[in-house]
Amino acid sequence: MGRVKLVVLGTIGFDSVKTPFGEAPRVLGGSGSHAAVAASHFVKTGLVSCVGRDFSEVHEGMYRKRGIDTTGLVRLAHPTFSWKAHYDFDVNVAHTDAVNPTILGAYDPVLPAQWKNAPFALLGNILPKMQNRVLDQFSKKPVLSVCDTMNYYISSQPDAVKSTVRRCDIGLMNDAEARQLFDTPSLVKAAREILRLNSKYAIVKKGEHGAVLFTPKTHFAVPGFPLENVVDPTGCGDAFAGGFLGHLAKSGQVSEKNVRKAMVWGSVLASFNAEDFSFNRLLSVRPRELKRRYGEFQKMVLF
Amino acid sequence: MGRVKLVVLGTIGFDSVKTPFGEAPRVLGGSGSHAAVAASHFVKTGLVSCVGRDFSEVHEGMYRKRGIDTTGLVRLAHPTFSWKAHYDFDVNVAHTDAVNPTILGAYDPVLPAQWKNAPFALLGNILPKMQNRVLDQFSKKPVLSVCDTMNYYISSQPDAVKSTVRRCDIGLMNDAEARQLFDTPSLVKAAREILRLNSKYAIVKKGEHGAVLFTPKTHFAVPGFPLENVVDPTGCGDAFAGGFLGHLAKSGQVSEKNVRKAMVWGSVLASFNAEDFSFNRLLSVRPRELKRRYGEFQKMVLF
Repeated sequence: MGRVKLVVLGTIGFDSVKTPFGEAPRVLGGSGSHAAVAASHFVKTGLVSCVGRDFSEVHEGMYRKRGIDTTGLVRLAHPTFSWKAHYDFDVNVAHTDAVNPTILGAYDPVLPAQWKNAPFALLGNILPKMQNRVLDQFSKKPVLSVCDTMNYYISSQPDAVKSTVRRCDIGLMNDAEARQLFDTPSLVKAAREILRLNSKYAIVKKGEHGAVLFTPKTHFAVPGFPLENVVDPTGCGDAFAGGFLGHLAKSGQVSEKNVRKAMVWGSVLASFNAEDFSFNRLLSVRPRELKRRYGEFQKMVLF
Repeated sequence: MGRVKLVVLGTIGFDSVKTPFGEAPRVLGGSGSHAAVAASHFVKTGLVSCVGRDFSEVHEGMYRKRGIDTTGLVRLAHPTFSWKAHYDFDVNVAHTDAVNPTILGAYDPVLPAQWKNAPFALLGNILPKMQNRVLDQFSKKPVLSVCDTMNYYISSQPDAVKSTVRRCDIGLMNDAEARQLFDTPSLVKAAREILRLNSKYAIVKKGEHGAVLFTPKTHFAVPGFPLENVVDPTGCGDAFAGGFLGHLAKSGQVSEKNVRKAMVWGSVLASFNAEDFSFNRLLSVRPRELKRRYGEFQKMVLF
């Protein structure tokens, strides 16, 4: 697929997850993984992240198999980020049992020289200062940059989160996170605050309930896809972001019309992500299946 | 508007509600109230319910003002049903502080003779045996009957709930309730169980996240309307049901295409219901405003 069009920053980690449908010990995960693998279905993607010595060639091969450029991976002398969690009957809420983020303390993201002109950037879930560091290294502002975040950083460093959102074209976060960051129960008000931080679009993800796009004058809602079996929701938000920006990077158009389509593509990738542990389903899903589900989304909202 | 086309069964109560946006002491509420007032925007509606001596002519006038036929109200020597609750920052969850349901123990619903041929019936949230009693009194099966239910009856008498669903054409419930009734975390599986109880359609309401319609082969999702200010979500599910069946009763068509439209009309009424305490906003909202919001739903899902 040639040159990297989309740069994804995010974590790579080993997840040990238990859901009502089974469990998976130490499988690959992390915001960068799910986002990059989702995006790789659309466009040549480069992943900026850090891994430890326990991250093997076999692991790296999983990304390469999807055509992802792994030049941006830094190998450090710490164990790879790891996270242990379980989901109860309500699979919307992850309960963290253990986390080892020490590697992040030693990580300073480096944007490979040949990616400094990449037109699209997804600053996935990771420390805001790392999102800023990556943006700093672009030789010119990307055509479109999107930043995601999470409750942990919103609680501990809300101002840093806001400053990253301010530098990006699209601010993306969960509904609970948006409410928390702007201290309002109203999603509409929270979205307006995101737009006030210079975002062209504000996107609020709502887990299994879909996502909403806000512009200063309009909004667009894509419902969640009713899945027969949600095996593991871990990384669905990241897969959404990857599919979303992957579609935009592929088409090169950032009109509202195309951003709406991108919301649906993001939802398609997120729905497949939930069908298996890790990003397994995103490795096996075929273009035909992706297209078919996109068509199902079209039929699903017709009235 | 002539003869009653839609019979609504449900509670009438005095609600004392506190939300992050204010509070309202002892305002009219109850499943029957919200549903009937919503439905009254579409079709001549008759309300079957019970009230106490503390329910005055002024109260009854609120329903009459909307053209609702109140012949089906029975006045009993108990205090009117009452409910006290508060909502926290997350307005999706009502926390009950007090409830006085004693009047329901003395209530045996009576369907007025002139309504026994009514073509549409909404069996709102109330004891399953009362829903059955009303169905028993129809001289012929209505063209379309819809039954709603709630977690309280699902916990205490799941079999009675299922037997009512079995007698109706459409089973309607919240996502959490559907999961609870059929003991599965999967909404799709829960919906399929509703369909197995002889429902032509299964409808799962998801609060601010909208609602999903399931048929044996298709599904349709209507997203929640992003409201600037949710003042009080009490009764939104009932308003949804009333708007839904109101539209169907008005048009007389129960094709899937029209059922989808009805889902959107239900959502329109539910969204207005949330804009004020009690069903105040449903009393003041104009046909033009309803139509405009329906149009906003159309634009909101276009991609």
